[in-house]
Amino acid sequence: MTTDSPLPSPGTPVGVYDSGFGGLTVLRQLQRVLPELDYVYLGDNGRAPYGGRDVDTVLNFAEQCVERLFGEGCRTIVVACHTVSCVALRHLQQRYGSAERRVLGVTIPAAEAAVAATRGHVGFLGTARTVASHTFRTEVRKLSATVQVSEVAAPVLAPLVEEGWEDTDIARLAVARYAAQFGEIDTLVLGCTHYPLLERAFREVVPAGVAVLNPAPEVARRFAIWRAHHPALAPAGSGRLRVLSSGDIARFARHGARFLGEELPPVEHIAEQQGRLALCPDEAEPPGQIVRE
Amino acid sequence: MTTDSPLPSPGTPVGVYDSGFGGLTVLRQLQRVLPELDYVYLGDNGRAPYGGRDVDTVLNFAEQCVERLFGEGCRTIVVACHTVSCVALRHLQQRYGSAERRVLGVTIPAAEAAVAATRGHVGFLGTARTVASHTFRTEVRKLSATVQVSEVAAPVLAPLVEEGWEDTDIARLAVARYAAQFGEIDTLVLGCTHYPLLERAFREVVPAGVAVLNPAPEVARRFAIWRAHHPALAPAGSGRLRVLSSGDIARFARHGARFLGEELPPVEHIAEQQGRLALCPDEAEPPGQIVRE
Repeated sequence: MTTDSPLPSPGTPVGVYDSGFGGLTVLRQLQRVLPELDYVYLGDNGRAPYGGRDVDTVLNFAEQCVERLFGEGCRTIVVACHTVSCVALRHLQQRYGSAERRVLGVTIPAAEAAVAATRGHVGFLGTARTVASHTFRTEVRKLSATVQVSEVAAPVLAPLVEEGWEDTDIARLAVARYAAQFGEIDTLVLGCTHYPLLERAFREVVPAGVAVLNPAPEVARRFAIWRAHHPALAPAGSGRLRVLSSGDIARFARHGARFLGEELPPVEHIAEQQGRLALCPDEAEPPGQIVRE
Repeated sequence: MTTDSPLPSPGTPVGVYDSGFGGLTVLRQLQRVLPELDYVYLGDNGRAPYGGRDVDTVLNFAEQCVERLFGEGCRTIVVACHTVSCVALRHLQQRYGSAERRVLGVTIPAAEAAVAATRGHVGFLGTARTVASHTFRTEVRKLSATVQVSEVAAPVLAPLVEEGWEDTDIARLAVARYAAQFGEIDTLVLGCTHYPLLERAFREVVPAGVAVLNPAPEVARRFAIWRAHHPALAPAGSGRLRVLSSGDIARFARHGARFLGEELPPVEHIAEQQGRLALCPDEAEPPGQIVRE
């Protein structure tokens, strides 16, 4: 443990970081397999979506979020967001990783799950930035020389889920439209943490024989195996959960429950102050024109 | 003219700023009423949508975009984006406005057009950030003590239009769902520059007697009146158009033509560099993991 991060008391939570709500679908699986751990979830909703931000900005945001979670006493952080995992994970690992601190991602577990499931042709659906990185395809190629990967960007789906429309004809038609953009795939990977809420819609529209793969359970399963080898980095606690968000906390609590599958604890507000994400209780949105000095 | 902005040669274009493509629907109307002016359009697509972002981020982006346009020689900038107009216009006017430089918005023209059109109850549809500001309602109240305003946020519509899906059942169902959230309105204001592409869908779903109002023609009509009083701030040129975008320029050219109603000139790429939007010919997205020292 470095000196700027004193041993927290009484626990050492696992940090789960996402650009918004979506990572709660990963947290849900982590809590299922390791309910005895403490977790701190950080959703950077106030600055989401990250896609389209210049790379430097994405790295800055990711650094701030990871530093906030280390500041909360975490020794292990799971980057639940596919966009950050695909673009910034290696940077975070090189900057912060050590024998005492780890940053883990979702792309390699997703690639391993896909290679295990496929008969030869994987479809991958993600955000524009995730797909542009081709990191998922790169990871699949490391595992298999023969598995083909087709990638499609689906920019409408995350907003649909954010709106709570996952059980509407609008969602089913949008899902069908994206699914139709793939060729002859046999496995469809949901490469954004919002998409598991559309899993039923995907299963309805894909042809028979195409498996729909939510990587989150595999991420959790592999995390449990990893953790068995590194118990000091993610020690048992008492199943507590804290939730931090840089966005509107009332909205986060309302929508977040759909992603986590249960009510959230009171959401704590964080905001950027002098290049850091500080705890910031006053989260009210100012109405009207905002004039800044 | 301040010293940091030398008199441009040979023209003084009018700047039109939007978070993405949508402001091209405003530019189209400006070109219709004032075809002899030169224009520079700036679409901040690489960082759009603004609608869900925190206020500080919107202000930062707006400052960068306005500074870029002043740097192009503009003396007058029309903020075509309702989100920026509702949240940041006063800030931009106080920071940059002078006898020699003006920043104009779309909210007051939209409010005036709505008050002129309504029989008493206006519905206003916009992004989450626009609606949260209540700036449109505030402007209507300055004009009329009796006109009622109901505001609804429609976060799915702009992504749908960005995807080019405005002529699909997905769009029609989404429009119907939002329109149904209003009570007994008689006028529906399309309070986001993307929505005019959905105007036909709106006309199909609103009850008979409800007028669908695209504010862009009124913005242009009032700009022409304003300009007659300030000819030096927007002098006649030769009808030239330059287009700058922080997003994928091939995609901008392809989609932008739908908004402008005609082909665009070659789109120039801009990108955030050290807190400024610089002209940046190399717009290729770096693939894979990005590691920064």
